[in-house]
Amino acid sequence: MAGSTFGTIFRITTWGESHGKGVGVVVDGCPAGVPLSEEIIQKYLDRRKPGQTRYSTPRKENDTVTIQSGIFEGKTTGTPISIAVYNETQRSSDYSEIAGYYRPGHADFTFDAKYGFRDYRGGGRSSGRETIGRVAAGAVACAVLKELGINVFAYTKMIGPITGNPDCSLLENRIKSPLCMLDLDASARAEEYLLKTMQQLDSSGGIIECIVSGMPAGIGDPVFDKLDANLAKAIFSIGAVKGFEIGSGFLAASSLGSENNDAFLGIQNGRAVKASNHAGGILGGISDGSDIVLRAAIKPTPSIARTQQSIRQDGSPLQINIKGRHDPIIVPRAVVVVEAMTAVTLTDALLCGMGARIDHIHDFYQ
Amino acid sequence: MAGSTFGTIFRITTWGESHGKGVGVVVDGCPAGVPLSEEIIQKYLDRRKPGQTRYSTPRKENDTVTIQSGIFEGKTTGTPISIAVYNETQRSSDYSEIAGYYRPGHADFTFDAKYGFRDYRGGGRSSGRETIGRVAAGAVACAVLKELGINVFAYTKMIGPITGNPDCSLLENRIKSPLCMLDLDASARAEEYLLKTMQQLDSSGGIIECIVSGMPAGIGDPVFDKLDANLAKAIFSIGAVKGFEIGSGFLAASSLGSENNDAFLGIQNGRAVKASNHAGGILGGISDGSDIVLRAAIKPTPSIARTQQSIRQDGSPLQINIKGRHDPIIVPRAVVVVEAMTAVTLTDALLCGMGARIDHIHDFYQ
Amino acid sequence: MAGSTFGTIFRITTWGESHGKGVGVVVDGCPAGVPLSEEIIQKYLDRRKPGQTRYSTPRKENDTVTIQSGIFEGKTTGTPISIAVYNETQRSSDYSEIAGYYRPGHADFTFDAKYGFRDYRGGGRSSGRETIGRVAAGAVACAVLKELGINVFAYTKMIGPITGNPDCSLLENRIKSPLCMLDLDASARAEEYLLKTMQQLDSSGGIIECIVSGMPAGIGDPVFDKLDANLAKAIFSIGAVKGFEIGSGFLAASSLGSENNDAFLGIQNGRAVKASNHAGGILGGISDGSDIVLRAAIKPTPSIARTQQSIRQDGSPLQINIKGRHDPIIVPRAVVVVEAMTAVTLTDALLCGMGARIDHIHDFYQ
Amino acid sequence: MAGSTFGTIFRITTWGESHGKGVGVVVDGCPAGVPLSEEIIQKYLDRRKPGQTRYSTPRKENDTVTIQSGIFEGKTTGTPISIAVYNETQRSSDYSEIAGYYRPGHADFTFDAKYGFRDYRGGGRSSGRETIGRVAAGAVACAVLKELGINVFAYTKMIGPITGNPDCSLLENRIKSPLCMLDLDASARAEEYLLKTMQQLDSSGGIIECIVSGMPAGIGDPVFDKLDANLAKAIFSIGAVKGFEIGSGFLAASSLGSENNDAFLGIQNGRAVKASNHAGGILGGISDGSDIVLRAAIKPTPSIARTQQSIRQDGSPLQINIKGRHDPIIVPRAVVVVEAMTAVTLTDALLCGMGARIDHIHDFYQ
Repeated sequence: MAGSTFGTIFRITTWGESHGKGVGVVVDGCPAGVPLSEEIIQKYLDRRKPGQTRYSTPRKENDTVTIQSGIFEGKTTGTPISIAVYNETQRSSDYSEIAGYYRPGHADFTFDAKYGFRDYRGGGRSSGRETIGRVAAGAVACAVLKELGINVFAYTKMIGPITGNPDCSLLENRIKSPLCMLDLDASARAEEYLLKTMQQLDSSGGIIECIVSGMPAGIGDPVFDKLDANLAKAIFSIGAVKGFEIGSGFLAASSLGSENNDAFLGIQNGRAVKASNHAGGILGGISDGSDIVLRAAIKPTPSIARTQQSIRQDGSPLQINIKGRHDPIIVPRAVVVVEAMTAVTLTDALLCGMGARIDHIHDFYQ
Repeated sequence: MAGSTFGTIFRITTWGESHGKGVGVVVDGCPAGVPLSEEIIQKYLDRRKPGQTRYSTPRKENDTVTIQSGIFEGKTTGTPISIAVYNETQRSSDYSEIAGYYRPGHADFTFDAKYGFRDYRGGGRSSGRETIGRVAAGAVACAVLKELGINVFAYTKMIGPITGNPDCSLLENRIKSPLCMLDLDASARAEEYLLKTMQQLDSSGGIIECIVSGMPAGIGDPVFDKLDANLAKAIFSIGAVKGFEIGSGFLAASSLGSENNDAFLGIQNGRAVKASNHAGGILGGISDGSDIVLRAAIKPTPSIARTQQSIRQDGSPLQINIKGRHDPIIVPRAVVVVEAMTAVTLTDALLCGMGARIDHIHDFYQ
Repeated sequence: MAGSTFGTIFRITTWGESHGKGVGVVVDGCPAGVPLSEEIIQKYLDRRKPGQTRYSTPRKENDTVTIQSGIFEGKTTGTPISIAVYNETQRSSDYSEIAGYYRPGHADFTFDAKYGFRDYRGGGRSSGRETIGRVAAGAVACAVLKELGINVFAYTKMIGPITGNPDCSLLENRIKSPLCMLDLDASARAEEYLLKTMQQLDSSGGIIECIVSGMPAGIGDPVFDKLDANLAKAIFSIGAVKGFEIGSGFLAASSLGSENNDAFLGIQNGRAVKASNHAGGILGGISDGSDIVLRAAIKPTPSIARTQQSIRQDGSPLQINIKGRHDPIIVPRAVVVVEAMTAVTLTDALLCGMGARIDHIHDFYQ
Repeated sequence: MAGSTFGTIFRITTWGESHGKGVGVVVDGCPAGVPLSEEIIQKYLDRRKPGQTRYSTPRKENDTVTIQSGIFEGKTTGTPISIAVYNETQRSSDYSEIAGYYRPGHADFTFDAKYGFRDYRGGGRSSGRETIGRVAAGAVACAVLKELGINVFAYTKMIGPITGNPDCSLLENRIKSPLCMLDLDASARAEEYLLKTMQQLDSSGGIIECIVSGMPAGIGDPVFDKLDANLAKAIFSIGAVKGFEIGSGFLAASSLGSENNDAFLGIQNGRAVKASNHAGGILGGISDGSDIVLRAAIKPTPSIARTQQSIRQDGSPLQINIKGRHDPIIVPRAVVVVEAMTAVTLTDALLCGMGARIDHIHDFYQ
């Protein structure tokens, strides 16, 4: 079925495979009048570009963005913004070998099960390159949120077993760490860990945390379109995500109610002031005006050079050794993808939430 | 905005508040010809009914279901199935006190922030009674899945800090444990823990695991409507859920690729046979035919009798003591809700997935 | 598939068959704070009630409305409004005969073709009683529109070949005509025509016109969700509608551009002042602030007492004589249904349209 | 809001303005395995290309299509098909004049009312060039329908006041008439009429009829997603459409029930055999297997060279003379657009309709 569109009012549709002509996104429902340019979007894309550290694939991709519609005189017009990144030289021959078998941890088998065949070059549609469209859409969403004073910030909280100290929360550190961590000591230890992993021809995962500040209270819906439910879907739709939590998350399961409840202290600019934020900024599916805090667990890259047991398309067994240049970890490159999906979800929720009260609607249309 | 509808083809819409005339659901898009009756649905509702153990609120609610449309001669007709449970005697006066302040951990503040006022009786729309509609819809979904040989089973994996031994996986044990655990030793220890918590006027959370067997491979979509992404939303839309994971979940983040990849061994009935199931039955957003395994972290009940710090609607502080009969833990009653949302999501995915291949469509319409 | 839900933000879901327990609607996404009561809704339902003139079926149905959720202290709360009308004594035996054959002009054959069998009692889901849910939802939408100074008014423009004089546009006349016409002379002639038709055991159709005043300019979307496109779907989803037009409609096809263009004269309160309104209040899919004018062509009631050629379920031919009490014309009863679907569509468009400009969104969230 | 996406399972999203970098469409949810190429799509685009007869704008546009994703080895892969047509040399200066005033019959005023400003070059998003995306998507839909034995054929039924004789239904004639009429005598008279109209610096409208053959019975849904309701929306979303009807359409309103009912004669291959087809192939919103017959009324091109009364953005009056090369009639070029939107709607309905019966679903997943 259709599954490449996300959102209700602010709605994005991605397209493109790893080794086709390119990848892109159509952003529909973006409000008119938002300053936007290719430069603004390129900055976000550059954060997911490979080849910037030794911990990502050495493939060289410039990922140069072009805006094809929806902008006039430097501002969004309210009509669809079509954004594309065209693929540069691709050698599909690299992939002819994997056409005939199924890589463990990849979507090769399930694509064949669903569609009967697949574009096997570089993972096709399930390639990490699909996230280029998400990041570009996220840049647009961030441009909208910026106008409303809302900021979305993600970083690497954990690499393999190495967790950063939560007290080291200097946001400026992210740019100093090749792994996008805030705790630079932990980052150094994580680098060591990764190098060892790479020597073993293996790969690692990690945890990304995302913090949203400046969110108004009252955004989100009480039942199926809870703000956290939509965030859960948004983040879980990123390949390699295996877990999602908000606020105290899984820790809440073993806490007492008296520990986990956040005492209310007051109201400031319509936002709740609370003694703690175990709720992660959302109560009953609706934002309370505190920071929204969410985390995503990212599995280790499935493409590893070690010999693995697998099967051919006919089910017969074989031993495989995946060649090529693969990311030993995708966490640092996925940080901006988590930001993007968070921003897209929040922007949609903000636009959907304007019709909640008849007095506000009345004033709006006066 | 609208937020009470879930699903694309198999689509459910819930309605109702804790203290209104009743609660219910409209199930639209259910295939014609599925055997269904009030008895079938009632069995599911009875599993979430309060007052069955000392670990749930002693409130007496029969929650008797009525089907109002969509069934003819014992089978679904393909038209909307309207299901209602009417509320019995409710004493709204119990709640007049909470009208003026915001309970920590509840949606009182955020409802006011969104809508300007709220039906404060018993939590209104954010009451746990809203899940009655979900469970009824889940019963319909399970009736569909049963016809296709698919089984959905959830149980309590953890209560507070007490985790069941994963080796104790006798499914029949669920009915023997008042907490819906499979490990009866752990269940006994969890009961002790809960009694102590209750004596301290406090509450507990826990973790629910859900296992789906018999799922065909090839269900789900590769990008935003990944099967796990839709499950994440479905489960996270249940009130009190703070975390969601699939397969090895958060553990994957600290694993190596060589550990986390599931080796393929063969293909049986179109389903992958794998050496392990860290993926939880889903690869690239599409089912691989293994069991789907997911977990939800449930926070402790926010309604506790201990004194808490809070605020009035004007932001001024006060100390509150919540009265009334509240669940010291909702986990055991939420088990069937997790099953229901899982079943609804899978049924929708199965119906949406029929148009994936032109050869299948051609044969279908011959 | 699901097909019983309409709308994006203001979203309605109807349920129920002719001879089931009842019919109803869930209205989701209604703004909080709108005054609403059963009395307000009942007035709309009374306008579609049968048995009020000799030109509708003499069946006695009170169609008493109950609101089951979503209202607190006389106002909408923003949560789903569940509205039901329970069926009174129904003698299903009347319909056992039609179980085995297909009535011309009815959905009997197509239901069997789609679902394999059908609830044959009184047309089941394709009965005119399904419109009760639409009218109730329309009453809610009209309550919203009233708060915004928008009025929706429909009337009978034509009965069989008898058209009212467009100069006779005294809206107050509608209540004086048993056929809901404004031209009382034409109404009298239409009554004569209908009586003759009824004597011949035949039925008639007609045209309903709907006029919306007070609509702001700028509502609707430029491409697929054009305001007129959504109105076309809304009106065409009413059973028996075979044609839809807006403004000068089909007449535009034979006009010259110089005749059909509406000259702009000025701007008043943000609305276009035009020398004429051939556009029917919508340009490029977006309201211009003039009256929205639309028309629906209603086919003659397919249930007629005259002998008709038809087939049994196995395809074998037979002659049928439909018994029972049927409307010789449904146009007068459908007037309020056209109003309802128009109001629902406009309310949704108004709520969806609030996020069109970043400056407005910025001010809204300040 | 978002309004550039159409469809539920087979879902299209168009983007692009008249004078931006290009226009395009993303077709999501297309089944895998459908033969598709740029050549196949180009043939459809060539039918809407301007400059082919003296009755269309002499602007030279090649409208060369490129497929950017979703095809592998000549077949669709089931993933999004991104299709673009890049604009060739555009002289935006032509349009600077119209930036300051509102053209009658155009969307200039309403775009400003909605978005606060507009891309005024060539109509921006409300330009006829937006239909390029629709036609490309329609070509994809037609490729799907062809695999299922379904054919969609549209032609010009009326130009200004000149109607073709319905007996002249030689489909091969369409290519012989520069106006896409089937009655070549009427076509010749229509040419004369158009030339006279053009001399008077005026424009004309007309009626397009579309006929679908080979449709199975049982497609469409009974309530809001009636097949005719979705077709009504699809066709009405084409700019310049002011009326839509199905089967006998507006004529049904003045017919008797005994005339308008189609007698059933038998069942063939699951399709109804009827004595007539006043219903236009759809009963109760569901296809009966007869030809689907629909008509669209197209208004005269609003861009005319004659002097017109209009206003500036500040509401002050002025006389305008629209310059440039405009179509004196768009009907012949819109024929393929009507086919496209019909094909897209039917393809979606076919894919959505596969889950109607549990026995069929059971067999499908065996």
